[in-house]
Amino acid sequence: MDYNRLSLELHEKFQWKIETKLKTPITSKEDLATVYSPWVAAPCMEIAKDTKLAKKYTLKGNTVAVISDGSAVLWLWNIGPEASLPVMEWKCALFKEFAWVNAFPIVLDTQDTQEIISTIKNIAPTFWWINLEDISAPRCFEIEERLKAELDIPVFHDDQHGTAIVCLAGLINALKITGKNKSDIKVVVNGLWAAGTAIIKLLLLYGVTDIIACDSKWVVSKSRTDLNNEKQKILNITNPNNISGTLSEAIASADVFLWVSAPKSLSQDMVKSMNTDAIIFAMANPDPEIMPELAYEAGAKIVATGRSDYPNQINNVLVFPWIFKWALAAWVNAITDDMKISAAQALAAAVENPSPEKIIPWPFEDWIAGLIAQSIA
Amino acid sequence: MDYNRLSLELHEKFQWKIETKLKTPITSKEDLATVYSPWVAAPCMEIAKDTKLAKKYTLKGNTVAVISDGSAVLWLWNIGPEASLPVMEWKCALFKEFAWVNAFPIVLDTQDTQEIISTIKNIAPTFWWINLEDISAPRCFEIEERLKAELDIPVFHDDQHGTAIVCLAGLINALKITGKNKSDIKVVVNGLWAAGTAIIKLLLLYGVTDIIACDSKWVVSKSRTDLNNEKQKILNITNPNNISGTLSEAIASADVFLWVSAPKSLSQDMVKSMNTDAIIFAMANPDPEIMPELAYEAGAKIVATGRSDYPNQINNVLVFPWIFKWALAAWVNAITDDMKISAAQALAAAVENPSPEKIIPWPFEDWIAGLIAQSIA
Repeated sequence: MDYNRLSLELHEKFQWKIETKLKTPITSKEDLATVYSPWVAAPCMEIAKDTKLAKKYTLKGNTVAVISDGSAVLWLWNIGPEASLPVMEWKCALFKEFAWVNAFPIVLDTQDTQEIISTIKNIAPTFWWINLEDISAPRCFEIEERLKAELDIPVFHDDQHGTAIVCLAGLINALKITGKNKSDIKVVVNGLWAAGTAIIKLLLLYGVTDIIACDSKWVVSKSRTDLNNEKQKILNITNPNNISGTLSEAIASADVFLWVSAPKSLSQDMVKSMNTDAIIFAMANPDPEIMPELAYEAGAKIVATGRSDYPNQINNVLVFPWIFKWALAAWVNAITDDMKISAAQALAAAVENPSPEKIIPWPFEDWIAGLIAQSIA
Repeated sequence: MDYNRLSLELHEKFQWKIETKLKTPITSKEDLATVYSPWVAAPCMEIAKDTKLAKKYTLKGNTVAVISDGSAVLWLWNIGPEASLPVMEWKCALFKEFAWVNAFPIVLDTQDTQEIISTIKNIAPTFWWINLEDISAPRCFEIEERLKAELDIPVFHDDQHGTAIVCLAGLINALKITGKNKSDIKVVVNGLWAAGTAIIKLLLLYGVTDIIACDSKWVVSKSRTDLNNEKQKILNITNPNNISGTLSEAIASADVFLWVSAPKSLSQDMVKSMNTDAIIFAMANPDPEIMPELAYEAGAKIVATGRSDYPNQINNVLVFPWIFKWALAAWVNAITDDMKISAAQALAAAVENPSPEKIIPWPFEDWIAGLIAQSIA
């Protein structure tokens, strides 16, 4: 089937994927007077006295903003705000479909860090939560940090934290299957964009100690002189044995290989050079860096990808709807590191008998919602 | 009944008045792959080639932003963004209820003119239309003008133009009933905020020639030395006989009195000093400047207010849903002056036998939608 064409036809047919819906109909002059002018003044005056009451009386209590500048969209990268709208709109649809959370897409006609921060701060009063999406690194790190510090509502960059949680969940089960221990394994992470950086930080928090970071072909090591601020920070927390060289050199004898950069090729020889029972997460979309059948042929024990037509699909739709649903219900102000690890453990535990073909649940197993909520509560 | 309490209870019960709704459910892995990753890339790539296609493939084609800084809300004035949310949310609900247009509220944490303009420009790619709401004068004029010039989507300040259209509609029927002619009448407009200023401009375009503008107690005349830029512009187009003095002096022998400022008192003596068959629009909320029974007792022929419990309710819900619905269907880029006058004429014509108790339809006569659409097409 020509999925490109089918997708275009569906998008044209539906045009908007989400629409607004009234929770209560307005059918008479009396309705109009009670809820709109003049009596709408009653909640207005209450909120004017205490702005926190906006959560009680308005959509602020249940509405997430899905915000992007269109600079790092799928594998298409910098396609601009309008072209990123289909992704943001579906993300909002998934929030509703999986977790009954109201989410609305906002795409920004600027890619300037300061202007993005001030624009988001200016529109924040409508929302209960800011979900950053597909904003390129390293700007995404500063934007998230600044907004977290300057806003009184939660800010969450899903490409970082959602992806990291799903990866950790998969890794927990992969280690269980292979009998490897988190403090003994050598992990190579290739690609230091938003997701790769967040995965490294979460694995360290979880107790993995030996992580080697690579940006494209080269190991992030002390001998590098071309590291930007963000990569310097990564160097400070990775590469305990201070190895240097190429990706191929780093991968030799590694137990786990996580690839979260733009599509490149991972050769069978590189897989063969890894430790026994190698674990490979090849997460580029739409084509993984190595097709699972080739990786298995070269000796890999467990392979995960971003694709829905292979087992072990790493997709943050497994996490973000429920993280938000739970956080909205509990009205927390931030998702802490502990909550992220608990969510990953719950997601891993949701697979009853983990096997190389099933290290994580698939998105439509909706009972995992309760597990995640319980675990991070 | 305690409407304040009832309103609070309803707002707390419903919390959010509008929610998001999926137009199509997502129920399988295949659905997810087709509409979300990876095949969502198809519309993304099309829009990247031509951003205008965002209207075809996304919610941009049918979504209005209702934007306020909370500086001129109802009769509560500057209550801030959070406290204005109930009004904006209901406005969005009315868009949906009356015209099936999707609208989303955005309230701004800034009242700085330049910052409002840049913030709205930055979030514009999501929307097909910017509806400005409850932004105080004179900032609202500059904000609307600048955005109109700098954005390629329509910008409409409903407090100005929606209100002006409903007022003109009421006036057209009031003149018919009293047998007065638009070019002979003396009209006094008191209150030069957003609505008053727009009413003056629209009446002039319609062919009314003798309009006297007042700001609170004083006539806007050449003898004034305290006029800001906007009021200077009003002076240039009003007061052809160059009268000066107080509101009481201006109102003597006037045919029409339009009051669109904050609540003040209009005395029976002032009404008595007007021409025979006086027409009074006392539109302050929640209490009009003079109660209709007192105005009639003092000799007024026709009285309109903003209240739903008296005849002749002047409410822009009579106009904005259909103006937008029609404009969205036709994908026009702006509502021109001609369209505004045509809409007012259609709204007036929608009352079959105008009488002093019925100069305009009421909001739930939904057949007026078609009339307005036809008239401005």
